[in-house]
Amino acid sequence: MASLQDIGVSAAINLLSALAFLVAFGLLRLQPINDRVYFPKWYLKGIRGSPRRSGHVGNVVNLDFNMYMRFLNWMPAALKMPEPELIEHAGLDSAVFVRIYLLGLKIFVPITFLAFAVLVPVNWTGDTLERVKGLTYSDIDKLSISNIPPGSKRFWVHLGMFYIFSFWTYYILYKEYKIIASMRLRFLASQKRRPDQFTVLLRNVPLDPDESVSEHIEHFFCVNHPDHYLSHQLVYNANYLAKLVEKKKSVQNWLVYYENKYERNPNERPTTKTGFWGLWGSKVDAIDHYTAEVEKLSKEEDIEREKVVSDPNAIIPAAFVSFKTRWGAAVCAQTQQSSNPTIWLTEWAPEPRDIFWDNLAIPYVKLAVRRLLMAVALFLLTFFFMIPIAFVQSLANIEGIMKVFPFLKPIIEKKVIKSVIQGFLPGIALKIFLILLPKILMTMSQIEGFTSLSALDRRSAEKYHLFILVNVFLGSVVTGTAFQQLKKFVDEPSTEFAKTVGDSIPMKATFFITYVMVDGWAGIAAEILRLVPLAMFHLKNTFLVKTDQDRDQAMDPGCVEFAISEPRIQLYILLGFVYSVVTPILLPFIIVFFAFSYLVYRHQIINVYNQKYESGAAFWPHVHRRVIIGLLISQLLLMGLFSMRDAEKSSAVLVALPILTIWVHKFCQGRFESAFVKFPLQDAMVKDTLERATEPNLDLKAYLKDAYVHPVFKDNSMDPTALIDDEESNPLVPTKRNSQRSSKFPSEESSDSDG
Amino acid sequence: MASLQDIGVSAAINLLSALAFLVAFGLLRLQPINDRVYFPKWYLKGIRGSPRRSGHVGNVVNLDFNMYMRFLNWMPAALKMPEPELIEHAGLDSAVFVRIYLLGLKIFVPITFLAFAVLVPVNWTGDTLERVKGLTYSDIDKLSISNIPPGSKRFWVHLGMFYIFSFWTYYILYKEYKIIASMRLRFLASQKRRPDQFTVLLRNVPLDPDESVSEHIEHFFCVNHPDHYLSHQLVYNANYLAKLVEKKKSVQNWLVYYENKYERNPNERPTTKTGFWGLWGSKVDAIDHYTAEVEKLSKEEDIEREKVVSDPNAIIPAAFVSFKTRWGAAVCAQTQQSSNPTIWLTEWAPEPRDIFWDNLAIPYVKLAVRRLLMAVALFLLTFFFMIPIAFVQSLANIEGIMKVFPFLKPIIEKKVIKSVIQGFLPGIALKIFLILLPKILMTMSQIEGFTSLSALDRRSAEKYHLFILVNVFLGSVVTGTAFQQLKKFVDEPSTEFAKTVGDSIPMKATFFITYVMVDGWAGIAAEILRLVPLAMFHLKNTFLVKTDQDRDQAMDPGCVEFAISEPRIQLYILLGFVYSVVTPILLPFIIVFFAFSYLVYRHQIINVYNQKYESGAAFWPHVHRRVIIGLLISQLLLMGLFSMRDAEKSSAVLVALPILTIWVHKFCQGRFESAFVKFPLQDAMVKDTLERATEPNLDLKAYLKDAYVHPVFKDNSMDPTALIDDEESNPLVPTKRNSQRSSKFPSEESSDSDG
Repeated sequence: MASLQDIGVSAAINLLSALAFLVAFGLLRLQPINDRVYFPKWYLKGIRGSPRRSGHVGNVVNLDFNMYMRFLNWMPAALKMPEPELIEHAGLDSAVFVRIYLLGLKIFVPITFLAFAVLVPVNWTGDTLERVKGLTYSDIDKLSISNIPPGSKRFWVHLGMFYIFSFWTYYILYKEYKIIASMRLRFLASQKRRPDQFTVLLRNVPLDPDESVSEHIEHFFCVNHPDHYLSHQLVYNANYLAKLVEKKKSVQNWLVYYENKYERNPNERPTTKTGFWGLWGSKVDAIDHYTAEVEKLSKEEDIEREKVVSDPNAIIPAAFVSFKTRWGAAVCAQTQQSSNPTIWLTEWAPEPRDIFWDNLAIPYVKLAVRRLLMAVALFLLTFFFMIPIAFVQSLANIEGIMKVFPFLKPIIEKKVIKSVIQGFLPGIALKIFLILLPKILMTMSQIEGFTSLSALDRRSAEKYHLFILVNVFLGSVVTGTAFQQLKKFVDEPSTEFAKTVGDSIPMKATFFITYVMVDGWAGIAAEILRLVPLAMFHLKNTFLVKTDQDRDQAMDPGCVEFAISEPRIQLYILLGFVYSVVTPILLPFIIVFFAFSYLVYRHQIINVYNQKYESGAAFWPHVHRRVIIGLLISQLLLMGLFSMRDAEKSSAVLVALPILTIWVHKFCQGRFESAFVKFPLQDAMVKDTLERATEPNLDLKAYLKDAYVHPVFKDNSMDPTALIDDEESNPLVPTKRNSQRSSKFPSEESSDSDG
Repeated sequence: MASLQDIGVSAAINLLSALAFLVAFGLLRLQPINDRVYFPKWYLKGIRGSPRRSGHVGNVVNLDFNMYMRFLNWMPAALKMPEPELIEHAGLDSAVFVRIYLLGLKIFVPITFLAFAVLVPVNWTGDTLERVKGLTYSDIDKLSISNIPPGSKRFWVHLGMFYIFSFWTYYILYKEYKIIASMRLRFLASQKRRPDQFTVLLRNVPLDPDESVSEHIEHFFCVNHPDHYLSHQLVYNANYLAKLVEKKKSVQNWLVYYENKYERNPNERPTTKTGFWGLWGSKVDAIDHYTAEVEKLSKEEDIEREKVVSDPNAIIPAAFVSFKTRWGAAVCAQTQQSSNPTIWLTEWAPEPRDIFWDNLAIPYVKLAVRRLLMAVALFLLTFFFMIPIAFVQSLANIEGIMKVFPFLKPIIEKKVIKSVIQGFLPGIALKIFLILLPKILMTMSQIEGFTSLSALDRRSAEKYHLFILVNVFLGSVVTGTAFQQLKKFVDEPSTEFAKTVGDSIPMKATFFITYVMVDGWAGIAAEILRLVPLAMFHLKNTFLVKTDQDRDQAMDPGCVEFAISEPRIQLYILLGFVYSVVTPILLPFIIVFFAFSYLVYRHQIINVYNQKYESGAAFWPHVHRRVIIGLLISQLLLMGLFSMRDAEKSSAVLVALPILTIWVHKFCQGRFESAFVKFPLQDAMVKDTLERATEPNLDLKAYLKDAYVHPVFKDNSMDPTALIDDEESNPLVPTKRNSQRSSKFPSEESSDSDG
């Protein structure tokens, strides 16, 4: 077991490495050549044109050394932007996402102070470990609950503190839910006119032998929503077309690459091979080949485009139905249309860029079967994922490699390389799996048939949370694979399981402290450095970019990866709850993580990330629920822990807590959840009335005409900014504010002070 | 353990006693004096005036012996009425209620045949019990799974059969859900105009300092439902007034009683005492006293009535809001009105007689707290109800009684009486508790704040089901109190618990066979005899009745006690599932129960029960869910049983079943449940359009004016038939059908054949 000193050393190392990342970030960020990597958001907004060239700032490398002195300047800058402006700038989703870190701080800062003021002294003077001779123990154990003798009256202090912690958490959770619900309502109310306010997504239109889908929809809504129905937009099955467009784009990239190559070196016509990835096949002139390829694909695309529009079979039984008023749309989205609840399904239309087009035409029975299969698959994946990996590992040994690639034999047989491979190979399959995992989970969610990207993200986060809970948290506390845990859980009494897990928790404190530092601190520092986008940008910039527009396309701003980040936050919150009374020394590490993450992500959403969609913080009920789950787990484990230490009475007193937690959840859910799933008629009516008064001559039909057309029909150039229609139509940044904001814009600030 | 012969004897006894009940019923039913006890439904419908006096049939006693010969004639008569007519006659609720028994038959008749064809031979030739010497076993055990040697390959037969049984049940459940959903939709579509089609129940109206509740409601709906809002009906807090009316009625009953007494014996003015129950206090002239009392109460009632109507504080923040069209009401009931989901709550208005007026004004927070408290109370009641009963039992011993009532000492000390009391007393507290239990559960549901009688019934049924499951089923299988089971469940691994329970199941077969006969068969036979209403009617008839109208009021037709009967049916269904592969010999007993119950209840709803309300079979999703729960329990127990008999492999193969069961439930729920909770706009529109075409000049406002007035304001005479407004407004039985129906009307038939 590690001593306080060991932890200190480890913390120092991790702090230093994080600092190194930050220094690297500080240096790279100031180079104009990296401007599009570290400030893409501003380019997307059209505020920043190209790297500024004032003072000593060169085009490629920044030579102003004053600026290097203040390489941490971005931190206060990230905090400066006030929240309303942040919402306007980066969307409510992003603003609420960083509030999750704030939630962590709000919960754990007071808890940490209390724990250090009360529990640490109580534990320190417990004296159990010192009395038992011959026992090796560390200072950390002296600060933890292990230092309290079994059956001691001191457990009542822990018990009381845990009640206080729980109630504090309830309070914060309730308040935060309230704040975010009102933020969402204000956001929705203040929004300008948007197509999704007037539109519902209609699915499972029944087939009619006498009418086309379009006629059928029109007749149905003219009859059943006579005063409100306006128009509808059919959905075409353009999945193949979208693939063609995608392929053409990649071929075009190659064409540009070879043209650039030829430009730089006009003496030699570049060549390529026609086979797979240009690795084999006959040699041809690259520019001619790709020009021909592009032409061929263009033709194919036109034919397919024609076919999709004219073929009645390409129309899928779904549509976007628009109404004359927001009230009409709100009514249609919330009511049942037909007595058969599996046809004429209506729901709020996601905003156009949030739609996942592939899933719009899945009938009810198929959907039910898919959900069942995916539930089983998730169970197997969570508990048995080690089996295929172990299989791959058994194959991927040195002998196997030598058999398949005999020509590598001389290299592999060198001793150094051999030992490296042997030490490395077994881990690599697992590592690849863990990197692929979010993608696998996303694919599973896609198979389940959700129709919007935001819903897919929320669903994947749920799956990832389960995986982390079982394989990282429980997997670390209970030794053995998830499958062995499962067996243990089934074979042991449920109380016994809680007891064994609860008992081993204090011993794992140092492990989790290290985990927080390595995975948390270093992970966040790597996030801000953006190594992969940095490399990709410079590669593209070198080989593909000709015009400024190309350069904009080469940017990869990325976005908030809710499905990956949120479950990890939940793990830290869970750790915080569990160790708040067991080993309070862990709490500061978590606080540092939350504070640092808050800073970094606030910086990233201001300067880097682009919004894929705007769901209006629809994920908050999920965040709330998972915090509640974390609290519940910690309460159950603590009951187990107490009853292992002959404090059965205290354990019994804890019984009320889980019940209370569930009740708090239900209460908050009933009080606030509907703000996230329904759109009240009163608000719709207010906006309708206002609009009728201010714009009596609005041609809504024209406004909605192309809002819900499949992106491949909309815009051949696939300009990403064109999709952000609401921002386009009303420029977000008026002139006056613009100057305010630029002062908060870090590198501009430094160059200002310079010029 | 009982042998087949023992069971046979027991069955014969129970059959004879059931037969005795039926003979008694056959005899009593034919006496004209009992006509209002056994055929009240027809009186309520106004079809039957007073007992017929044709042929040999006298006024009081029936002397026609031919009719006695055919005392079982009611049975085919009960089955004759076709279902559509039954729905028209007794309502959809009753018609669907008897279908629960039919569901039992549909599930278990094929299962029984299969089990006897396959499993009984397999078990019989198992030969285990014969080989083990010195083991006492009975024939029943030879027919059960106990006769299969551990680890035998024969278990695969049981396994396969259980899969077949489960799939058969899925199929029947799905089909039945589908049938009943379409029955409900057809019923709702065919209904005549009813106030609840146009009305939503509005709750939690926020207080406004500037407006009265009525103005506030009017303004809100005029703004937010401008095209559809028609009017609203305020709700007054008339609970005290209702109590006064109730009290006046009882005093009036006493007045009538003494007047009758005086009429029969004009020489003596009856006297009474003014104190509690007329037991002590000063002696007064009874008629004068009660006349004065009635007058006093009438005055008090008038004052209170005045006060309620004029006092603004008597208006509670709830109302019935009516709309111009069914479409408008359907929209309002299904949407959220305000961004705060705890105010302006709208839901479908229950029909007027279904409303539980006391609960209309409970704010959200209070409701949440009440639900929490009741959940805890239900848990305690289910698992610890024995503690207070044991306490009462310890008090209610002979010494205790002698201390409190010393004057009883000489009687009690007689040996015979003493032993009777000693044998009787301990059981009596438990018996009283069990009789009171449904009432206790109903009170708990009322505290939870449901606003309609039908919802209260459904909720109470849920509670009672849990109680029966834990205390009757598990309590019989696992010995010990519910609390000990709970401890066992918590302390043992979940698999271990399933194993011990599964293991002891075969041994309890004879107990449950007896239970089915005593509780099931005899209980149903007692149901048809209606001893309590019979006695009550004759008491009232003797002392209170003067006019025919009085006689009608003395009838107590009763109604389908869903909250009590349904959970019991679920117990039998659960027993059927559990023993279908374990001890198939139990199945015929359950089938007899279902068939007999179906017959009896069909007879009762045709001839006896009055409808308290019509919910349109809204309880079916609950019935479906509980059958699914029963199936799940049986599947888990069977897994436990198999793994106890060294058939671990078979046990593992069963794992798929619970998952499938849950999936089937989800599937059916998604497919059909909305038919029971929502009202589709399409159907509303169809009815609206039809009505507009047929009755263009309908004055809807006048029609709805008094529909949702508190019953105490509606009708002073409290005529029960006045509440059945839909039946009143359109006489259910046209002349032609009337004659058809009367031929199915049992005693009329016999008298016809006689005349």
